[in-house]
Amino acid sequence: MLYPVAWHDDRVSLIDQTRLPTLYSRVEIRRSDDMAMAIKTMIVRGAPAIGVAAAYGMYLGAREIETDDRAEFLTALDGVADLLRGTRPTAVNLFWAIERMLKTARQTVGSVESIQAVLLKTAQEIQEEDLRTCQAIGDRGLEVLPESPQKLRILTHCNAGALATAGYGTALGVVRSAWREGRLERVYANETRPRFQGAKLTAWECVQEGIPVTVITDSMAAHCMKEGLIDAVVVGADRIAANGDTANKIGTYSLALVARAHNIPFFVAAPFSTVDFNLGDGAQIPIEERDPAEIYRIGDTQLTPAGVEFYNPAFDVTPAASISAIVTEDGAIPPEQLGGRIPSQQNS
Amino acid sequence: MLYPVAWHDDRVSLIDQTRLPTLYSRVEIRRSDDMAMAIKTMIVRGAPAIGVAAAYGMYLGAREIETDDRAEFLTALDGVADLLRGTRPTAVNLFWAIERMLKTARQTVGSVESIQAVLLKTAQEIQEEDLRTCQAIGDRGLEVLPESPQKLRILTHCNAGALATAGYGTALGVVRSAWREGRLERVYANETRPRFQGAKLTAWECVQEGIPVTVITDSMAAHCMKEGLIDAVVVGADRIAANGDTANKIGTYSLALVARAHNIPFFVAAPFSTVDFNLGDGAQIPIEERDPAEIYRIGDTQLTPAGVEFYNPAFDVTPAASISAIVTEDGAIPPEQLGGRIPSQQNS
Repeated sequence: MLYPVAWHDDRVSLIDQTRLPTLYSRVEIRRSDDMAMAIKTMIVRGAPAIGVAAAYGMYLGAREIETDDRAEFLTALDGVADLLRGTRPTAVNLFWAIERMLKTARQTVGSVESIQAVLLKTAQEIQEEDLRTCQAIGDRGLEVLPESPQKLRILTHCNAGALATAGYGTALGVVRSAWREGRLERVYANETRPRFQGAKLTAWECVQEGIPVTVITDSMAAHCMKEGLIDAVVVGADRIAANGDTANKIGTYSLALVARAHNIPFFVAAPFSTVDFNLGDGAQIPIEERDPAEIYRIGDTQLTPAGVEFYNPAFDVTPAASISAIVTEDGAIPPEQLGGRIPSQQNS
Repeated sequence: MLYPVAWHDDRVSLIDQTRLPTLYSRVEIRRSDDMAMAIKTMIVRGAPAIGVAAAYGMYLGAREIETDDRAEFLTALDGVADLLRGTRPTAVNLFWAIERMLKTARQTVGSVESIQAVLLKTAQEIQEEDLRTCQAIGDRGLEVLPESPQKLRILTHCNAGALATAGYGTALGVVRSAWREGRLERVYANETRPRFQGAKLTAWECVQEGIPVTVITDSMAAHCMKEGLIDAVVVGADRIAANGDTANKIGTYSLALVARAHNIPFFVAAPFSTVDFNLGDGAQIPIEERDPAEIYRIGDTQLTPAGVEFYNPAFDVTPAASISAIVTEDGAIPPEQLGGRIPSQQNS
């Protein structure tokens, strides 16, 4: 099993996802500001993995607060929360995990030291829960995949794999469960411009497990569908509004439209922690814009001439109407029924 | 004006499009086999430019044939034609130009030397005609662009510009005419994976003329449309079947589907020489598959891990039903009416 975020003794160990697939290496994080930087620079990425990393970041920050005064401690912890919240705007798991850690701190009676201990335990719980959740998403997703053909060709976008979660993955969780049950022929991985998470990370995860994978450019997906090469599309999510509108990696919306044009089922696989029940619809989801250099520079290669402008939104929003079902740890839910499924934990 | 293919004294001068935008350089071609290689390796690319280059390639080949015997000469010329036909399978202008040169040779009475002279003249005519044709396509395209807003945001894919033709361009011909008439706000250029003709060539052409250009990844087009940033899409074509089905750079089909989902007009701009009246529909258009290295290697950067497979179709086919109009030198034609518009030259 792949664990992109792991706790070792007194520190967090992250797989450095900016170096894959060329190099598998781990970065050791001991401080909350280093964790904030690791999230911002995408050493760790993927909505659920960001949530887990932020939870540990909250603990690392809590550990850095030098006071015995509970009120002072909680005020300082709010500062750590702000630092971590400022890293990336779209993935709601970040805010969800930070909020859960803050709430835990406020609700824990006793010394600062005991609160710190509870925070480490909570971060570990968030990690373990996410792993179990992903395994459930994978298995529940398998139930709603098309029954025919027996061996499916599944197209995915970006990386919603073990690397994007505590392990196992959401969209790739469904792929893994299908592979394990002999229902998978092949994964088609969109390369996922501008950062190539499909070509680099999804391809790498598939190769690690011996799952056949074909990498295509994002622009080839519609053609592959027309050629009859794709049986289902499964993607992850960075934030889902209460009405089922889903923010995910740029290109997902385009993929949903072309899947619909070919009557190919389009599934979003995500835990309930990715649903933002405070947002009525997707228009309210903040979309991160990233450095244009992600578009115009690849390695040492400069693609464009001087004088060109760029637009680099990192996510887009797929309307609920273009989504066949949202596969959660509680099973596949038609997007329009999502609003009625607020889990008790988020309802409180 | 930009002339990607030019005749100088005794040789053809090509802009080396594989080096743009980093370096503007010209390659001198004196032999037909060098011209075949230049087409194959995309030193010259774009359907109409390939047609012009192939016409000159036929002349260069004719010049290399050492005989005074007319029949012997014509047989050898068929060999030159075969060499040039074998370079790229999809763009019909290649075959159209070669056929026109062969026919001219067969119909010319007189010595081998006089046939050779007529062939040079014919290649030059093909070039001049294409330039006039592109200017007409640009002007006629302007007539069918949306009337509102006054200043349009036009999205294009790949490079159907001056570089892809004898000059002026087809899709970028429409853009140039709109710019000249004060009807253009900005070009959005899809980068066009895998070879980045949008980021490299279309961006370069726009910068040369001072036309504002925003480069996006192909996967962002649908999102930009949803955000209200795009008023019209104009693309070129590599081969159009008699029913209007259009083969063009991979990603065009996806773009047509997402344009339709947003009710944004989608125009194909192409000369009649791109229409293959022998093909009933797009299913019969041969689609070139190119080296997978175009997907996995960019400059010195290797994107994917070992063990991955690839699929690299260079073109896709957009059904006539997804095309608002085909803009030709004779004006904009609804795709379903194309079959009735065989020009006399092709009809013969």
